[in-house]
Amino acid sequence: MAKREPKQERSQRTRAVLVQAAAEVFAEAGFAGASVNKIANRAGLTLGALYFHFENKEAVAREIVRMQPSFATPVDGAEGLQRAVDITLIWAYGLLRNPVLVAGARLVAEQGDFMGPEENSHRQWAAILADALRSAQSRREVRSGVDVEAVARLVVNASTGAQLHAFAESGPGRSDLPFRIEEMWRCLLPALAVPSAIKRLEFGEGRARPDADAPMHA
Amino acid sequence: MAKREPKQERSQRTRAVLVQAAAEVFAEAGFAGASVNKIANRAGLTLGALYFHFENKEAVAREIVRMQPSFATPVDGAEGLQRAVDITLIWAYGLLRNPVLVAGARLVAEQGDFMGPEENSHRQWAAILADALRSAQSRREVRSGVDVEAVARLVVNASTGAQLHAFAESGPGRSDLPFRIEEMWRCLLPALAVPSAIKRLEFGEGRARPDADAPMHA
Repeated sequence: MAKREPKQERSQRTRAVLVQAAAEVFAEAGFAGASVNKIANRAGLTLGALYFHFENKEAVAREIVRMQPSFATPVDGAEGLQRAVDITLIWAYGLLRNPVLVAGARLVAEQGDFMGPEENSHRQWAAILADALRSAQSRREVRSGVDVEAVARLVVNASTGAQLHAFAESGPGRSDLPFRIEEMWRCLLPALAVPSAIKRLEFGEGRARPDADAPMHA
Repeated sequence: MAKREPKQERSQRTRAVLVQAAAEVFAEAGFAGASVNKIANRAGLTLGALYFHFENKEAVAREIVRMQPSFATPVDGAEGLQRAVDITLIWAYGLLRNPVLVAGARLVAEQGDFMGPEENSHRQWAAILADALRSAQSRREVRSGVDVEAVARLVVNASTGAQLHAFAESGPGRSDLPFRIEEMWRCLLPALAVPSAIKRLEFGEGRARPDADAPMHA
């Protein structure tokens, strides 16, 4: 007899199926165009199952926005400036194929409908990048006078704009996004980093995790 | 007897009323939520009058996106780097009150629905900023090795992201947008401009035209 799947694992798996289905629906239809019915149908689950895991559509959308950074965590121990760069590259390459990141990118323009300002996506990403840049500053890769919080906000704003414009230029594939992210850093780095640190930086798809389709809970 | 308004002037005035009404409707409802009926109603005009001026909703939306730069033209003869800065400040302060700019900001996320890539808003703004930065380079305010096209794209991307995030933070008022635009330049300028040129730059609402509600056709 096959071993029964433990209840908790089954529940986690159902939740993951719901999030994936919701991401596809939000990516296609936006927040306003999505409904709990569409999401449950896409997941092949009942409305009851959806409501067991999420209070409403807003709660699913919040979860998707909150999950974004878990898909953009460098795994190879990159530190400081390379870590900041890697976070943006993993996100940019991930956006080419990961429905949760695509949904998050679309929902960012509509987040006022389901998130308070205190938890919005911009603040979430800016805090993560400011951490990496602060560490880069303590490693003397970033110059001491630089306002890392302001740079983090600029990088998040420019990345948000870049994904919108990549969408306008090349459609849902957003194929030129990674190039625009590298271009952003090339323009910005001379203002903040020391030349030797800039020289050491690596760009390109090699910096993005090959398994960027799976979230990192580490 | 009062002089009759010439036909051409009347027609231009009707067109302006339609654009203003359409801007309000797009700003409130987005591209998908707007309709020619809503726009004609808001303008207090018939559908026939709307169709005399515009082929369809897409054509009105394209006109609004195309008009954006006419609201962000420095008038006091600012040149070079100050001109590039002024364009972004006039736009940022204008967005606090001008329905056509608010509509354009909202439509930028949906422009794939009514504009081809070759005329999208990103390219339009990037070309205008690249011109100003190229002139700044020829005036030796911007260093010769700097890729002004790339910087222009970065500034447009960051401004787009800043307005989205200002909306998420402070709602339709977007009251912190001008601050974010100045912050962007403060972070970026050391990478591209010579120190004396940075020192001469002016920021603040004084750089935005007081009459930024009216387009410039000059």
